[in-house]
Amino acid sequence: MKIDIVKNVLKYNKDEADKNRKIFKKNNILVFNLLSSPGAGKTSLIIKTIEKIGDRKRIGVIEGDIASTHDSKKIKKYINNVVQINTGGTCHLNASMVAKAIGKLKLEELDIIFIENVGNLICTVGFDLGEDFKVVISSVNEGDDKPLKYPPIFIKSNLVVLNKIDMLEVSDFNSNFFSRKVKELNPEVKIIKLSCLAGKGLNEWVDWVIDKS
Amino acid sequence: MKIDIVKNVLKYNKDEADKNRKIFKKNNILVFNLLSSPGAGKTSLIIKTIEKIGDRKRIGVIEGDIASTHDSKKIKKYINNVVQINTGGTCHLNASMVAKAIGKLKLEELDIIFIENVGNLICTVGFDLGEDFKVVISSVNEGDDKPLKYPPIFIKSNLVVLNKIDMLEVSDFNSNFFSRKVKELNPEVKIIKLSCLAGKGLNEWVDWVIDKS
Repeated sequence: MKIDIVKNVLKYNKDEADKNRKIFKKNNILVFNLLSSPGAGKTSLIIKTIEKIGDRKRIGVIEGDIASTHDSKKIKKYINNVVQINTGGTCHLNASMVAKAIGKLKLEELDIIFIENVGNLICTVGFDLGEDFKVVISSVNEGDDKPLKYPPIFIKSNLVVLNKIDMLEVSDFNSNFFSRKVKELNPEVKIIKLSCLAGKGLNEWVDWVIDKS
Repeated sequence: MKIDIVKNVLKYNKDEADKNRKIFKKNNILVFNLLSSPGAGKTSLIIKTIEKIGDRKRIGVIEGDIASTHDSKKIKKYINNVVQINTGGTCHLNASMVAKAIGKLKLEELDIIFIENVGNLICTVGFDLGEDFKVVISSVNEGDDKPLKYPPIFIKSNLVVLNKIDMLEVSDFNSNFFSRKVKELNPEVKIIKLSCLAGKGLNEWVDWVIDKS
């Protein structure tokens, strides 16, 4: 019975995600689902991306948090098309929450949507939101063992971003170990190393985004 | 119906947690449930604590991860009484998992057990494991907005540890903002600021632990 319930929830979510996907396709919008631990730099990466390509691509953002409008306020300083979802305790976004958010965006004005998921390296990856690509953002200060300890999110993501590389010199993070463990889980995945704070490596990231669109 | 299921799960967990608590009490063992985001420093804090007070207090550790024995191997270099729980995907420990782990520890040889929960700032706090104290560990690199964005874990913890304070000088973390937001959620809670890497502030932490035992 428990398994049936889980199956039903995921089947329902998949159906809702497919509906979202149809809407995105119809409006020619490319959608990225950004996944990470709390504080790995999802919001900073979105802001840096808007600064870099906001003149060429019309960007919208769906912000997922269990509480507060802290992140959406930050992003509203840069763009208008921002919707905050407060999950009220739920540890991940689901496709129905995103469907409601879509209704509040001016889709005809957008080329790209970044969905900033709740900060959670486990539960978020199980829920298709209708996105084109899942991007996991890991950060140097979390340590090089995250692929080893949280495999599913590295297996199921289409890109791995390693943020905060300016911290490499004051940390014992082993870049080779991290990359090797990622590749063991997901041999074809690209890893982009960058620092939002220091402005390093961002061109490779925005080139990847542009290339997909 | 959905609510009934959630209630049943939490009621069952509470009963199992009460059983664990009885066993801990009977054996005069003090139990700390350590909660944090991935990579905030739970394992490092446990190792530093063993180094500081392992000669005075007999310490056991229950390690929770969704996969790997990475952390338990690290700790086994210091002590023998270590049990790894792999949740197989579940995003938090529950009392039944801990009950099984208890069976593998030599309780009569222990004064303190640290339970290192799965790295997750949301789901872990909802499940009583039978512990005496919940300790949330936040770290400078995650940013000063974590209390704002993840309130429940700060509300329900008995102590807040801010780790990686050696990073304060290379970060825009505002200590006053962080402390103020924690106190708004949990006015009486103590905040201990430390760095496992730099060995700063650890005496205040071990004094707190010893004081409880």
